[in-house]
Amino acid sequence: MTIDLNADLGEGFGVWLGPGDDASLLRHVSSANVACGFHAGDPTIMRETVALCAAAGVAVGAHPSYPDLRGFGRVPLMLPPERVIDDVLYQVGALMGIAAAQGVGVRHVKPHGALYEAVAVDPGLARALAAEVARLGEGLRLVVPASSPAAAALATAGHAHLREGFADRAYLESGLLVPRRRSGAVITEAEAAADQALALAEGREFATSDGTPIALSVDTLCVHSDTPGAVAIAAAVRERLALARFTVAAPA
Amino acid sequence: MTIDLNADLGEGFGVWLGPGDDASLLRHVSSANVACGFHAGDPTIMRETVALCAAAGVAVGAHPSYPDLRGFGRVPLMLPPERVIDDVLYQVGALMGIAAAQGVGVRHVKPHGALYEAVAVDPGLARALAAEVARLGEGLRLVVPASSPAAAALATAGHAHLREGFADRAYLESGLLVPRRRSGAVITEAEAAADQALALAEGREFATSDGTPIALSVDTLCVHSDTPGAVAIAAAVRERLALARFTVAAPA
Amino acid sequence: MTIDLNADLGEGFGVWLGPGDDASLLRHVSSANVACGFHAGDPTIMRETVALCAAAGVAVGAHPSYPDLRGFGRVPLMLPPERVIDDVLYQVGALMGIAAAQGVGVRHVKPHGALYEAVAVDPGLARALAAEVARLGEGLRLVVPASSPAAAALATAGHAHLREGFADRAYLESGLLVPRRRSGAVITEAEAAADQALALAEGREFATSDGTPIALSVDTLCVHSDTPGAVAIAAAVRERLALARFTVAAPA
Amino acid sequence: MTIDLNADLGEGFGVWLGPGDDASLLRHVSSANVACGFHAGDPTIMRETVALCAAAGVAVGAHPSYPDLRGFGRVPLMLPPERVIDDVLYQVGALMGIAAAQGVGVRHVKPHGALYEAVAVDPGLARALAAEVARLGEGLRLVVPASSPAAAALATAGHAHLREGFADRAYLESGLLVPRRRSGAVITEAEAAADQALALAEGREFATSDGTPIALSVDTLCVHSDTPGAVAIAAAVRERLALARFTVAAPA
Repeated sequence: MTIDLNADLGEGFGVWLGPGDDASLLRHVSSANVACGFHAGDPTIMRETVALCAAAGVAVGAHPSYPDLRGFGRVPLMLPPERVIDDVLYQVGALMGIAAAQGVGVRHVKPHGALYEAVAVDPGLARALAAEVARLGEGLRLVVPASSPAAAALATAGHAHLREGFADRAYLESGLLVPRRRSGAVITEAEAAADQALALAEGREFATSDGTPIALSVDTLCVHSDTPGAVAIAAAVRERLALARFTVAAPA
Repeated sequence: MTIDLNADLGEGFGVWLGPGDDASLLRHVSSANVACGFHAGDPTIMRETVALCAAAGVAVGAHPSYPDLRGFGRVPLMLPPERVIDDVLYQVGALMGIAAAQGVGVRHVKPHGALYEAVAVDPGLARALAAEVARLGEGLRLVVPASSPAAAALATAGHAHLREGFADRAYLESGLLVPRRRSGAVITEAEAAADQALALAEGREFATSDGTPIALSVDTLCVHSDTPGAVAIAAAVRERLALARFTVAAPA
Repeated sequence: MTIDLNADLGEGFGVWLGPGDDASLLRHVSSANVACGFHAGDPTIMRETVALCAAAGVAVGAHPSYPDLRGFGRVPLMLPPERVIDDVLYQVGALMGIAAAQGVGVRHVKPHGALYEAVAVDPGLARALAAEVARLGEGLRLVVPASSPAAAALATAGHAHLREGFADRAYLESGLLVPRRRSGAVITEAEAAADQALALAEGREFATSDGTPIALSVDTLCVHSDTPGAVAIAAAVRERLALARFTVAAPA
Repeated sequence: MTIDLNADLGEGFGVWLGPGDDASLLRHVSSANVACGFHAGDPTIMRETVALCAAAGVAVGAHPSYPDLRGFGRVPLMLPPERVIDDVLYQVGALMGIAAAQGVGVRHVKPHGALYEAVAVDPGLARALAAEVARLGEGLRLVVPASSPAAAALATAGHAHLREGFADRAYLESGLLVPRRRSGAVITEAEAAADQALALAEGREFATSDGTPIALSVDTLCVHSDTPGAVAIAAAVRERLALARFTVAAPA
């Protein structure tokens, strides 16, 4: 029984620090999504973040975004799909270059913010991205939300991918996340997040925001690095998974 | 007898076209230096340029720059060496990502503009860059001016590199180029450029701006894509080399 | 009888030239929309463009855009209205600063590309922009398409504004432009553009793409600087207007 | 007896917060240097910062920089003087636009970081900047270090300007600041900063880093918003000045 635990890292820019406590989070996660310069991160921060991951034995993934430093990649940009794909390849390649110089490989690609949401509901874009990304390296997999149209499309098309669940976000009965602007959208209580994480890892039912339970099949669990108490949440999730005899590790 | 002939390509940005006639130049050169987004080029232009190179059988190289779109990478920026190296790895990696999606490898790294000049005279930076770049791919070589301090340092340190000569630029007796602002700095007459190119390829003496002949050992010859008549110059250089029984091809 | 004739100028960036022949267009137009750095233009190009306008006796207007150099401001970005307004004030102020250093005032504000289209159909955004822009200078007016929801809203709310018609673009019966991707969308024949321009200036009926004639009331006529033959079109429009005894001049 | 007390504000970007506690600093200073988007700040942050200044009764000044978000404007860029001047006019104008929309005027221009240092030692650039800036608004004055070559040149040329002293930085006997990399360069003890501030305001001698006392004539005193304990320092400086019967206020 193996499950991956991931967090977004390296989300500063220049002199500005990112929202997360990267060094502490790295003690608990098995995979890191490293910002690639389009919503956060710059080549120097990327190098430093890769070095921290390598020292902590944490797998490095790319966290490409729409080009929007000022909006932190959270604004949905209606860019043509070709341009989006070009931008993702550029960012993933850039991280691969920086990582390769340290002897580190890139293991997955998790789109960031508004791009993550756009890919989730656009099977065509998901398939195109997964196909292009796979050409950059054997086993380089796209991360998409479990039970999303993208996940279904990638499964049908036979594209390797990782299905993601969220430890610190409430779900709707539909399997989608409760939008951030609604109260109760974010789970900040560490034990509650650990409960949901374990249910997700085991594929067991857990409560949604309106009470109806759902179950999801996931390959990787996310703790948002900017959730209040993120380090405590990540620690609690990891401990709970370990108690349940899960090996927390990046996908093979 | 083999010699490489290179030109800078893909130097537009967004809707703006670059100075060169890329499609025509690709009929004559054996290697292309593809802008990587910091002085020119964007992910879409990079993809299109790589596709043109692949179709023409021309080797793809990275053309990283200081981060200065507005100044086209021609302004010397006094950035810390670590930041310069991080930026180069980012750019080379980005091109490798875009090229890999098309099944194309990146073969060399030629710094652009002010960065090319900075590396040429800074043996420490040249060695650091060559060492880092070599980690990105076997046989990925740094291009530096023939007879520069950088070339000497790389030879001494045993770093693979390519020594470059210029078909369309007048030389000083020192082996440096006549600065662009001086009259006669640029050779726009195609046959004169072809004469100099052949002498460079053969390691024979050729006239410098003050008359004193010099000889250089070069691995690759450059025709600037923004020199007036660049396509005619590239065609004349290639024809002259062929007549002299040179194979014009990217380094093995 | 006075009518304004405007064109977009200063749409290069760094070393890249814009699509228009600015010097030639300035011989024919009475107002220039000067790019402000977000879709094209940089502070140096802005200064040079203002100087050309001043020398030609052409009124200077701001041409603010969504922040998208790579997409030339043509991609609709779903940015929050507050951010759009902040960005417009920033750009208009920047041009006012550069113009003021030459003793030149800014006379109008014409949103560019996708932002122009977004404002045209969003009365709330149009009103907010017009109100904010008016605070930057007495008589600083927003340019919107004649017969657009924005024009109607500004008239109702009593906000000074300029209604724009297009000499070189075919219209639909609705008063909207034929989308660029459809054949016949752009009028490249100079005399046909002059015909339409005169009808617009006189408020007379003219043919739309499906034959039904419409009439519009306009304060300013646009010739796109990137329409093939733009200079000839601008010359023909100006000559036709002069023959009909119009004074071609910026609004008082 | 009047003296100005200034601090740099609005130095975040997008989601990233600046180093200073702007709201607290605004309770103590009389002038704010507002980042204009080139080293920090964006149009939204600029609007919010101007609003905070207006609510606090603090004078708004522009804080233009070399274009270097990633390096926070601290890297000396060897840009041509004309480009630097264009960039400053663009930034000052942009802030004037955003401030004018709130009915607020811009009162001074203080170059940031590496640009501040470049202007300080380049009388030609200082004169050119002061002359251009003065055209943007009556009484718009350039801030330069007291006893710098720039201050001397502006006085000789008759350009209005403001001479600045630093409460929280140690001085050399030459009147220059102790470089930041040297120990003792920054004064973090609030009472020591207040001592130096009062001596500067009174034109009295104060100790330099090597013991030799110097005296300077200053119009404005700076507390760096990123000095540890900046708010306590600003409060102590203000209290000390008030006890000595100084009116702390922006220049008339």
